[in-house]
Amino acid sequence: MSRFLSKRFDGLEEYVPGEQPRDMKYVKLNTNESPYPPSPLVLKRVNSDEVKKLNLYPDPDCKSLRDKLAEFYGVLPENVFISNGSDEILSFSFMAFCDGEKKIAFPDISYGFYKVYGDLYGLDCTVIPLKDDFSIDVDEYCGINKNVVIANPNAPTGMSVSLDDVEKILRSNPDNIVIIDEAYVDFGGTSCIPLIKKYDNLLVVRTYSKSRSMAGARLGFSIASKEITADLNKIKYSTNPYNINRLTLIAGEAALDENHYYEDAANKIIKTRTRLSNALINAGFTVLPSDANFIFVRCPDMDGETLYLELKKRGVLVRHFKTERIKDYLRISIGTDEQIDILLEKIFEITGRKA
Amino acid sequence: MSRFLSKRFDGLEEYVPGEQPRDMKYVKLNTNESPYPPSPLVLKRVNSDEVKKLNLYPDPDCKSLRDKLAEFYGVLPENVFISNGSDEILSFSFMAFCDGEKKIAFPDISYGFYKVYGDLYGLDCTVIPLKDDFSIDVDEYCGINKNVVIANPNAPTGMSVSLDDVEKILRSNPDNIVIIDEAYVDFGGTSCIPLIKKYDNLLVVRTYSKSRSMAGARLGFSIASKEITADLNKIKYSTNPYNINRLTLIAGEAALDENHYYEDAANKIIKTRTRLSNALINAGFTVLPSDANFIFVRCPDMDGETLYLELKKRGVLVRHFKTERIKDYLRISIGTDEQIDILLEKIFEITGRKA
Repeated sequence: MSRFLSKRFDGLEEYVPGEQPRDMKYVKLNTNESPYPPSPLVLKRVNSDEVKKLNLYPDPDCKSLRDKLAEFYGVLPENVFISNGSDEILSFSFMAFCDGEKKIAFPDISYGFYKVYGDLYGLDCTVIPLKDDFSIDVDEYCGINKNVVIANPNAPTGMSVSLDDVEKILRSNPDNIVIIDEAYVDFGGTSCIPLIKKYDNLLVVRTYSKSRSMAGARLGFSIASKEITADLNKIKYSTNPYNINRLTLIAGEAALDENHYYEDAANKIIKTRTRLSNALINAGFTVLPSDANFIFVRCPDMDGETLYLELKKRGVLVRHFKTERIKDYLRISIGTDEQIDILLEKIFEITGRKA
Repeated sequence: MSRFLSKRFDGLEEYVPGEQPRDMKYVKLNTNESPYPPSPLVLKRVNSDEVKKLNLYPDPDCKSLRDKLAEFYGVLPENVFISNGSDEILSFSFMAFCDGEKKIAFPDISYGFYKVYGDLYGLDCTVIPLKDDFSIDVDEYCGINKNVVIANPNAPTGMSVSLDDVEKILRSNPDNIVIIDEAYVDFGGTSCIPLIKKYDNLLVVRTYSKSRSMAGARLGFSIASKEITADLNKIKYSTNPYNINRLTLIAGEAALDENHYYEDAANKIIKTRTRLSNALINAGFTVLPSDANFIFVRCPDMDGETLYLELKKRGVLVRHFKTERIKDYLRISIGTDEQIDILLEKIFEITGRKA
């Protein structure tokens, strides 16, 4: 820390991304990336003719991609906001819609960044515990009269809230924004995008990083009323208007033109997830019901940190959180079948359990 | 604006980037892009093998590129911060180092974004007029006891401040950050990067968007003490840790490996700038002395807006600012010789002047 940093950031604890060690080659199941590459059309269109044009700024308005996303999701281009990964939208939303009077509520166990944004922008956040079964306590959000952010499916649990429950929260907080972070929705959840026509307080956040195999390209988007979308643009044009790489804009369109490829990949991941979950359940592990491209798992007789470290020693990276309530769980990203076979072999070797 | 936007953004006026019209093909000299493509090595390394890996997150630490930039500029990797364009660093700096007590000063005529950042973060900014000759009034910044941000060369004037003057400002404000925005320094300015060893209050901001022909890739960086760099990382990891595209990181390294290409391109641009400036001066125009890849020009008998509009009608885009003090000037980016020939032909046609 320098002596110049504003005092208001004393004690700010930044987000810690999943580790990216360089000491050896790991089976990397710790950051919820897709194990499958982008589709052939992305590879075809992101070519050297396009690299040659990198001397030119990207379209800050992202018009062409917004048009395509709007058509794909059955909304208007004015409902679509494009960002440098969905984290950027989340950061903009906390900045734009929250302050000393407009507070925000979210679950105790969820995407760790919500708390970081709250701290960064000096907000008084209401943290609502998940129920004992790790499901979201929907009643606690009804009529709370605060902004709400919920990951659906939730991370790191993988568990979903029904659209009926989302509507209950929206209806009972008409003067507050309800942010539904659908990063993982394509792996078995149900999107609430159609609800933006009914609720002007809904902001749906999406990413290309998971089901669209583009974590390395940095592309997120949101769907909401045109007024909310205009607010997000105001923040974008007041921080970093040219926030998306030219090649990323092209890749983002190409991916939509080849949607069947990504549906197939998501289906493969769901199939692998079922196989992995069943194997671990048969071996006596607790596995939460997941609608995401990861599972959240507890070994009955080994603490989470030990299992994480033993796996790491054997070349398999998974994610462990030190938070008290979930410290005995591991979040395991769904890789290829080959990667999951190695994971299972190592887990059984370490724990002495078997399916 | 939605009814949910925080009241503190009432009246926030966002930055307006140079227009990107889609109605026809223009000779585009309005956003200071390089007219030359990235170097051959960038084209070679940003290839389909790398596009295939876009399913994986980029390294949030940008280790490999930081190492290379550190070596190139003769500093340590801990002195280098990497960002999604230099606008992002500027935004982070206003956020990190300014508040109600730590105010910031900058020139009245400079990069328009400084004022926007000030407004976004609710800061009380001190705006110091340029002298009558459009040079920066260095004495006004000495001992001002505020943070300072200066573009050097300045935009849209193109005029530089000497390193001696930068040192005067640094020395006389030891308890404040002095941000030197060197976006255009490679076109004839002198970088103050070596001064970071002498002054712990210096933050030098750079971009790949101009001299490195990568406006479309979104890559900026800064050089400063390791403490200031750590502060910027704290903000980055609290907003958007994966802020740089994988392909951009690769391109950023490749460009450094082929530096002679960019030196040649900068020399070509300087030569074209001299030719354009002389032609306009000979035709009776006022042309400020430029160290940047643009010139700032006034026609003796036609107002700036008219000349801008007449050029646009004829397919040539330049930048006009409505700010009172410079409303009769145009900022013209230095394109290829062919583009500049077209520009000159149209200017002479419109004004009836000739070289």
